[in-house]
Amino acid sequence: MRHLWDKGGVSPDERVERFLAGEDVHWDRELFLHDIRASRAHVAGLARIALLSADEAAALDASLGALADEFTAGTFVLDDRFEDGHSAIELYLTERLGDAGRKVHTGRSRNDQVLVALRLHAKETLDHLHALSLASADAFLDRAERDAMTPMPGYTHLQRAVPSSVGLWMAAFAEAFLDDAENARATRTLLDACPLGTAAGYGVNLPLDRVGVARDLGFSRVLVNPMYAQNSRGKLDLALLSSLSQAALDLRRFAWDLSLFSTAEFGFVTLPERFTTGSSIMPNKRNPDVVELLRTVYAVVAGAQVEVSSALSLPSGYHRDLQATKGPTLRASRAALDALALVPELVRSLELSPARMRAAITSDLYATDRAVDLARQGVPFRDAYRSVAEDLQGGASTPEQSLAARVSPGATGDLGLSELRSRASALR
Amino acid sequence: MRHLWDKGGVSPDERVERFLAGEDVHWDRELFLHDIRASRAHVAGLARIALLSADEAAALDASLGALADEFTAGTFVLDDRFEDGHSAIELYLTERLGDAGRKVHTGRSRNDQVLVALRLHAKETLDHLHALSLASADAFLDRAERDAMTPMPGYTHLQRAVPSSVGLWMAAFAEAFLDDAENARATRTLLDACPLGTAAGYGVNLPLDRVGVARDLGFSRVLVNPMYAQNSRGKLDLALLSSLSQAALDLRRFAWDLSLFSTAEFGFVTLPERFTTGSSIMPNKRNPDVVELLRTVYAVVAGAQVEVSSALSLPSGYHRDLQATKGPTLRASRAALDALALVPELVRSLELSPARMRAAITSDLYATDRAVDLARQGVPFRDAYRSVAEDLQGGASTPEQSLAARVSPGATGDLGLSELRSRASALR
Amino acid sequence: MRHLWDKGGVSPDERVERFLAGEDVHWDRELFLHDIRASRAHVAGLARIALLSADEAAALDASLGALADEFTAGTFVLDDRFEDGHSAIELYLTERLGDAGRKVHTGRSRNDQVLVALRLHAKETLDHLHALSLASADAFLDRAERDAMTPMPGYTHLQRAVPSSVGLWMAAFAEAFLDDAENARATRTLLDACPLGTAAGYGVNLPLDRVGVARDLGFSRVLVNPMYAQNSRGKLDLALLSSLSQAALDLRRFAWDLSLFSTAEFGFVTLPERFTTGSSIMPNKRNPDVVELLRTVYAVVAGAQVEVSSALSLPSGYHRDLQATKGPTLRASRAALDALALVPELVRSLELSPARMRAAITSDLYATDRAVDLARQGVPFRDAYRSVAEDLQGGASTPEQSLAARVSPGATGDLGLSELRSRASALR
Amino acid sequence: MRHLWDKGGVSPDERVERFLAGEDVHWDRELFLHDIRASRAHVAGLARIALLSADEAAALDASLGALADEFTAGTFVLDDRFEDGHSAIELYLTERLGDAGRKVHTGRSRNDQVLVALRLHAKETLDHLHALSLASADAFLDRAERDAMTPMPGYTHLQRAVPSSVGLWMAAFAEAFLDDAENARATRTLLDACPLGTAAGYGVNLPLDRVGVARDLGFSRVLVNPMYAQNSRGKLDLALLSSLSQAALDLRRFAWDLSLFSTAEFGFVTLPERFTTGSSIMPNKRNPDVVELLRTVYAVVAGAQVEVSSALSLPSGYHRDLQATKGPTLRASRAALDALALVPELVRSLELSPARMRAAITSDLYATDRAVDLARQGVPFRDAYRSVAEDLQGGASTPEQSLAARVSPGATGDLGLSELRSRASALR
Repeated sequence: MRHLWDKGGVSPDERVERFLAGEDVHWDRELFLHDIRASRAHVAGLARIALLSADEAAALDASLGALADEFTAGTFVLDDRFEDGHSAIELYLTERLGDAGRKVHTGRSRNDQVLVALRLHAKETLDHLHALSLASADAFLDRAERDAMTPMPGYTHLQRAVPSSVGLWMAAFAEAFLDDAENARATRTLLDACPLGTAAGYGVNLPLDRVGVARDLGFSRVLVNPMYAQNSRGKLDLALLSSLSQAALDLRRFAWDLSLFSTAEFGFVTLPERFTTGSSIMPNKRNPDVVELLRTVYAVVAGAQVEVSSALSLPSGYHRDLQATKGPTLRASRAALDALALVPELVRSLELSPARMRAAITSDLYATDRAVDLARQGVPFRDAYRSVAEDLQGGASTPEQSLAARVSPGATGDLGLSELRSRASALR
Repeated sequence: MRHLWDKGGVSPDERVERFLAGEDVHWDRELFLHDIRASRAHVAGLARIALLSADEAAALDASLGALADEFTAGTFVLDDRFEDGHSAIELYLTERLGDAGRKVHTGRSRNDQVLVALRLHAKETLDHLHALSLASADAFLDRAERDAMTPMPGYTHLQRAVPSSVGLWMAAFAEAFLDDAENARATRTLLDACPLGTAAGYGVNLPLDRVGVARDLGFSRVLVNPMYAQNSRGKLDLALLSSLSQAALDLRRFAWDLSLFSTAEFGFVTLPERFTTGSSIMPNKRNPDVVELLRTVYAVVAGAQVEVSSALSLPSGYHRDLQATKGPTLRASRAALDALALVPELVRSLELSPARMRAAITSDLYATDRAVDLARQGVPFRDAYRSVAEDLQGGASTPEQSLAARVSPGATGDLGLSELRSRASALR
Repeated sequence: MRHLWDKGGVSPDERVERFLAGEDVHWDRELFLHDIRASRAHVAGLARIALLSADEAAALDASLGALADEFTAGTFVLDDRFEDGHSAIELYLTERLGDAGRKVHTGRSRNDQVLVALRLHAKETLDHLHALSLASADAFLDRAERDAMTPMPGYTHLQRAVPSSVGLWMAAFAEAFLDDAENARATRTLLDACPLGTAAGYGVNLPLDRVGVARDLGFSRVLVNPMYAQNSRGKLDLALLSSLSQAALDLRRFAWDLSLFSTAEFGFVTLPERFTTGSSIMPNKRNPDVVELLRTVYAVVAGAQVEVSSALSLPSGYHRDLQATKGPTLRASRAALDALALVPELVRSLELSPARMRAAITSDLYATDRAVDLARQGVPFRDAYRSVAEDLQGGASTPEQSLAARVSPGATGDLGLSELRSRASALR
Repeated sequence: MRHLWDKGGVSPDERVERFLAGEDVHWDRELFLHDIRASRAHVAGLARIALLSADEAAALDASLGALADEFTAGTFVLDDRFEDGHSAIELYLTERLGDAGRKVHTGRSRNDQVLVALRLHAKETLDHLHALSLASADAFLDRAERDAMTPMPGYTHLQRAVPSSVGLWMAAFAEAFLDDAENARATRTLLDACPLGTAAGYGVNLPLDRVGVARDLGFSRVLVNPMYAQNSRGKLDLALLSSLSQAALDLRRFAWDLSLFSTAEFGFVTLPERFTTGSSIMPNKRNPDVVELLRTVYAVVAGAQVEVSSALSLPSGYHRDLQATKGPTLRASRAALDALALVPELVRSLELSPARMRAAITSDLYATDRAVDLARQGVPFRDAYRSVAEDLQGGASTPEQSLAARVSPGATGDLGLSELRSRASALR
């Protein structure tokens, strides 16, 4: 393998080189287009301070565009012929353009090169997370509207508690994913700072146009301090992973609901057949594998958080340890986005069994309503509670009456869907 | 023990009760004033919808105020005589006010009561985090200014790399803590929604004035959906912990720098004696215990994140499992804030050894400067790199020249302290 | 506060001292009797090499015995008057015995003193884990025997799959806890090495009788290398936590089964009333809080694992960071043992609903049996599978027939309880 | 894609299928030879109970052997044409052998098929871990012997503490890896139970020869209970990961030592050039990348532990969630073994700088020796400590004298290498 840093002397032997590489080049595929894009901005910046001639800059820009096209088309394969994606870019340019290629690394290090690619990736991932969260919230809002007054039991401790509605259940996840969209946006703002031009962590003796490069790449500000640029590696990954994890938590909870409600015993929900699979030994099975795998996405993100943060107990500055943050971050990003992309259709296509849900609302579930009614009539609540407890079956009511009477804002009688719709609009 | 829910029949035996309680009441001490404050807002809200008379509300409010005073003064002790803090409040009020006390729980559940206390705690913690992050950033900015041009080596891979400055090192942490302040503020905004009035997760058959109660408690909006209120437990803790963890990461890295730089071998930094301790067996030791314990705070937060999230794999609605999120969240909050509070003074009082740092800038550290200089003169950077690599000791320079020439924005010749000061102002 | 290491000069100020102490002295209460026991062995060892006279040794031993008694009786309180438990011991002895007390620390450091206490604690905890795992296995075995042929559905993906039995379910946890007992024993063997006499990590210039001290304390061998003694801190905690976590995993799964099977919808299991609690707002609720809290114990252990391991990224030798391993280890140990102690009685007192379980065995659940029967008659299994899939309701059978015919070893027709009982005996 | 469970009706659409597959087939490559081996044992077992004729069994066995050969040679590629490795095997056999192929799945499920492959993988991994730990211990023991009396400072809190030796440092890691070997063996014993023949978690209506199959596969016992077989998934992975993590902890600590000791400031150790790399921007750098990546292996294992355990919060029985345990377990196994394989050569080839280490033993490091000497002469140790503290530079000694006098067992004067060698032999 050729290295950018070859300067004679001993190279790592093959076994060591394989250990050093690990799967790093493999992961660089997910960053490669970002890296190329940042390289084009870097080239333009060098031209503005006359470190490259206009011709050199144009040639480099064109070659970088060609490389992006070849990579996208699959004719350029990023594999372990290269130490990493950064080396692949410089070697490609040098092979095609000679001296101009040998100039592209002026004023930068792979340390800031990977950082800018990671920031671009993080922003893109957060944009997807934002969009998918909003799309999920929309699907849940639509479903909440459609089934607003369909009665189902409300549970606490997995025990039937009070009458509730499908609308309330669906609106819960709508609001959850609105929070996730807001969270994604806030993290995007936090990470929207350009590290390119900080070199190996100490800047360079060149008047780099960092502000212009940041602007060209769509960043809203420059990440000022070069050492902080390095120290932010891993930290930025953890900020991204935290946003992904919040949505993954909601996904896990929704998957749990579906897993439970689609048992034969509950029987509230039927999953569309195309979201299920069969058994290799039991001819009678249809299994909710999709829902179960949606439930595991949080585990991927949580594992990534620990993997990243465990590698980060280090003094300031770049260390090769930081390479260990790349795999888990990219793996978890992909897992979370792939899973979220399935949510809207899943929500839309759930089949409900209103009769099963209604039948599960047994008469004791009206007890709390009755105690509160007594309280409204002036009986101290704690006394009302005890009096109702003595005769749990005593009240006659219907699910519809109970749902309609539950008028505290957000409850079944007043779901607050318009507030949630307004917030969704504001978040777009 | 008396329970709010006693209604005859079998109670848990003592061993089971002890297991159920765990340290929960102990942790409720940290939430108790928030719980009382929310109870006062709840009382006012009930009065507004005529569930309490003006006299009852006034009496309850006065008693709640008295309870807060007694708790603060230490004359009311929250301990395992009570099932939890919520029970303690209702029992206190009932004992003093009779029927009015028995009315206070009208329209609420301990489920939303603990949620509002947790949200108030989270917001307060984030306010502290924001303030301490800014105070730390200020201390680092001041120190960066004071030692702006004091030379020290810059390291990558813990190997000496290029000349750098104390100013660059200090400014790195200033920018880090500015990010943490911004992060704290964003999470505060995300969590600034009032769950009170959602009862056990399904609302109640009362027209509660949720908007008014939220406003009285200083929330900027109502958390609309009652089931999402329950589902947000743990999720909100993880959002808080993520913000704390970002600052704890910076703290860990700074502690690492001090731990390393205060070794005899580096000798760059001397810790003030009051931040050190001695050994029980070795008369010659002064040990940087404070710095080492600052380094461990991240571990507390990371442990809490896993503890909370591991308890959360559940279907929708309240489950007693959620109690398990309380301890780790409160423990980690306290650990992080206590540690951050020490940072400003530590930064201000560090004693530096400029001579040691200067002596560590050996002549090979100018190599990168020289390669870049050649590149500026038109030699392709990759060729310049190889040519310099052949004669590493060849360039004569001084640390001061090198620092001044490093003019890429943010680097030693242009630290960007004014940009960082502006951002600090904007974040206040 | 007086420190063992006071030697004039500046002391930490109060705020720093409070930060340094944290809850460390609080946790030392759980180690104090171990520390005293190890101190007695250390005294005896010093006497054997004539570093203490027989009279001094006798006086120290008596005073250490008295301290243990006072601590147990509550008349000696270990609190934040002391820097830690180790200091408390030396100060107590010095106050009572003068010079003899000032001699007790000869040849040891707090570094090995805490290590030996931690090892004694770990061994004791593993002994409890072993015993509780076996007691749980016994309870499950008894229950498996009692309900060996009570039919219930077997589930995969939470979907009904094939007929199964309560016996099979109970025997599953019996075998699980047998594994946990074996695991506890193996870890105990691994940790059964005495670190006392390694001082601060480099030994001392005294011919300490380490072998004798180890034997007196019941260790089967000496931990040889002093630096490894230090490096094993945290590592030993993680070995202990791993054993606890295996049992906690089984506990979590069993709690999940009970949580699910005690829903109204499943209705297979009723929890004894003394294992349930009520709601503050809903008069109709009985909630399975104990089961839900048992389910959270794994989270405590998992959080502790991450907290400990996150503090351990360090070079060799003692660092104050290691203090951060104490709290999570002791907290998780207590949580796991307290929870496991409830299992046998819970298992014994579960009330089953055989009728509900039997009714849930619908006719499609015999499909796999039928396919296998066809295979036995020579139809290739994959063809048998497809043929049965076309007529799922076609076979007439009873749960009893199905259970009896399931004769593969370990299955309902041959539960293998005697093998499990043999293994339980061998593990005692 | 063809599925074993196809039986007409709707199949998952392509997007869902891609989501379901994830990287699962990719990971199955690491299990494939184990799966084939277990399939051969299953075939032989079916023949013994006459479910297969002798000819069928011979044909299946030959084809399975051929498949293993083709897979090893790379002519059979396991990729996403298949739902998983299990399906690939059955389809391969059916294509070649017709009915005999369609019979291979008689009496088994993919659920127990993957479990037996995972157990075989775990045992193999633990065998490698055991061997690599012993090889590492040997290398450290050899090095300890070679440099037994080479003086270097001993550190606590990264501060110089007392004179120590390279022998003591190296022996510390020898003993560490002996513990790891013992741990690997204990976990192997724990996991050495055969789950094949438990089908989908409830056994089958066939008198499978489970004991014979287990023996053929080299297991020492049968995993008795079919439901526990399923419930042990993930739990077995965590037992394996715990053993890997213990060795990874030692690796991390050793890497930290090398990282620190190879700084210019310490200068105690020089890494062989083939274990280092260069910088893309700084011509003067040689970086210890291998050591830094060794340091990150623990993070991979810790992340895997959390990923696995986070997916496991489930009721009894198989769930598709369990698929999520496969990737992290296999990834972490590979990462840990690859890293450990580098240790022996690294240890052997370290170059030391005895002069630098000796120079770092400043005169104050003899203080503890002196205090202990006074204690031996009858001065109470606490008084000796204070008296020495007043005159830290007062004692004249040499590193050699100090090392030789440190005679407590395991210390520099008595390293206990023969005890460690004996234990290594016993563990082989």
